[in-house]
Amino acid sequence: MLKDYNIDPVTDLALDSAQAAIDIKTKPPGSLGRIEQLARQICGVQDTLAPSVDPARLLLFAADHGLVAEGISAWPSEVTTQMVTNFLGGGAAANIFARTNNVEISIIDAGISGELEDHDDLIRANITKGTANCMHQDAMSAAELGAALEFGAALAKQYVTEGTKVIALGEMGIGNTSSATLLAHAIHQIAIARLTGPGAGLDEPGVRQKIEILEKVARRKHGRLSPMEALQAYGGLEIAMMAGAIIGTASAGGIVLVDGFIASAAAMCALAARPDAVPYTVFAHRSKEPGHILMMEAIGATPLIDLDLRLGEGTGALLAFPLLRSACAMVNDMATFESAGVSGKDDE
Amino acid sequence: MLKDYNIDPVTDLALDSAQAAIDIKTKPPGSLGRIEQLARQICGVQDTLAPSVDPARLLLFAADHGLVAEGISAWPSEVTTQMVTNFLGGGAAANIFARTNNVEISIIDAGISGELEDHDDLIRANITKGTANCMHQDAMSAAELGAALEFGAALAKQYVTEGTKVIALGEMGIGNTSSATLLAHAIHQIAIARLTGPGAGLDEPGVRQKIEILEKVARRKHGRLSPMEALQAYGGLEIAMMAGAIIGTASAGGIVLVDGFIASAAAMCALAARPDAVPYTVFAHRSKEPGHILMMEAIGATPLIDLDLRLGEGTGALLAFPLLRSACAMVNDMATFESAGVSGKDDE
Repeated sequence: MLKDYNIDPVTDLALDSAQAAIDIKTKPPGSLGRIEQLARQICGVQDTLAPSVDPARLLLFAADHGLVAEGISAWPSEVTTQMVTNFLGGGAAANIFARTNNVEISIIDAGISGELEDHDDLIRANITKGTANCMHQDAMSAAELGAALEFGAALAKQYVTEGTKVIALGEMGIGNTSSATLLAHAIHQIAIARLTGPGAGLDEPGVRQKIEILEKVARRKHGRLSPMEALQAYGGLEIAMMAGAIIGTASAGGIVLVDGFIASAAAMCALAARPDAVPYTVFAHRSKEPGHILMMEAIGATPLIDLDLRLGEGTGALLAFPLLRSACAMVNDMATFESAGVSGKDDE
Repeated sequence: MLKDYNIDPVTDLALDSAQAAIDIKTKPPGSLGRIEQLARQICGVQDTLAPSVDPARLLLFAADHGLVAEGISAWPSEVTTQMVTNFLGGGAAANIFARTNNVEISIIDAGISGELEDHDDLIRANITKGTANCMHQDAMSAAELGAALEFGAALAKQYVTEGTKVIALGEMGIGNTSSATLLAHAIHQIAIARLTGPGAGLDEPGVRQKIEILEKVARRKHGRLSPMEALQAYGGLEIAMMAGAIIGTASAGGIVLVDGFIASAAAMCALAARPDAVPYTVFAHRSKEPGHILMMEAIGATPLIDLDLRLGEGTGALLAFPLLRSACAMVNDMATFESAGVSGKDDE
């Protein structure tokens, strides 16, 4: 996957230097828990003891899903386009949380089926207008998948090369919890019934119907699929672009901040194909969608926060982002035992 | 406890109005989970649909504990005074996280045993220089306890009256996990061995010794104690002041943001004595100290974040604070389905 995007290893020397710098700060060793781990990771990725996560940018990828025709969502596909209009107008949750937490935002038409007028803040991928219905055929052609991966990778790499330190990944796409579920099933062999939840608001009969439909879709393929095979089979375009963006960000030395269930499905694909991107990746939050915890276990990831979110759009990544800023500030600004004249543990 | 501080009830009307305003925002109902609950609570407390949590201020109370003479801490008591000097110099974790997250900070000498030169940012309570050794006598006299509660309440009330929207509570005091443990044991009858952890860095033999000492201390009293009896018996001055600050903040209509194990012990006392303050209180984070989860269960509270922190100083409250800001922004700035022209669920 994206073999032209080389990713440098994060060195033990950089990680050990960071740990040593953290351990002399005026606090009991390890007492800042996950913040210390985050700081170590960021210092390692940036190979510095003066880390920074600003500016940060949310890439918000929107796309439609042919499978919606089968009745797997409580919301009509038009909502994808309507929500992109809402993003462009600045009124969605992602916009609000981005402004509140000083994160920039880019809206990408990764393949929506509706029409949108031009807008300065809209980036169009121009690959195809939504995926095919994966009940009957692969969601994407090999060429479409390749183009989507490359588009996401190139876009993220460009931002990081121009100075962005953190790329947060969010999405909008009616029907995309179905893609995420099918991807987790195909790659990690987790039962669809265990993965499937209400998405953006199905009731219990709706969830049962969704399980039946997804099990039928899955029967079209056999056995474990590679990340590329699974992405091509089940989509979506926004997930493929996020997978590409992870590789692109890591290859340029940026930090990737992954949102919830759908963005994690992209990470699951990207990191399975390119484990060299793992050290660059932070999982922001645990989604309320039941498949997410199973996906996190399969990846071996522990998200930073757990606030019962199930919205997507990058909202969990935006809410977790200030923790990265505090982690950097700890390394940059906190006094050491020596500089502050504080006695060590058990000093006499 | 602090009967002159009246607390207005948060009305169902205010909470219901907030919920209605949240439910028409462009997202599936409930999909922002804890953020929606926070927004509802803040709107309810402030009786408004235009909530704000800025400015916010951390009150950082420091005090010493006579029980340290018995060997219950890995750190010498002098560290309390040294850390207050570090707070005044702006180099501690609390200072760094306060600056990073735009929270103001007040440093209170609640009763440290060391000497400190005057400093513009230092507030002195001037009650007593540390608690008595509670192995042999009550940590405080009734007069000292009353003065500490009143000091905390008056200080917090003054800040809120002058415009502060959120009072975050943090502390520093070598030995104060022992006070917190004894308080939870006395008020909720939880076994000391289950509550006791390493604090700021005891090894396993140290923890066993701490348990033995605390069990011996607890035998000086019999049965369940009232919050006031327990505070007087076990201290500390910083915990009593935080308990007072909760009542003072609530009485002035402010939001209380409670840090970890020690601040939660203060909340446990304050909320048991004054349940009318419960609607004003937010628990910021789950501490790694083992007693904290038991304390949260006893109170019936679910903290916002869980980052394996065990530092205190208000660091968990400061790290969680941006979530409150985002919750307000959701109510204030997010588009509604109608304003954004987005279709509802199952619309045709």
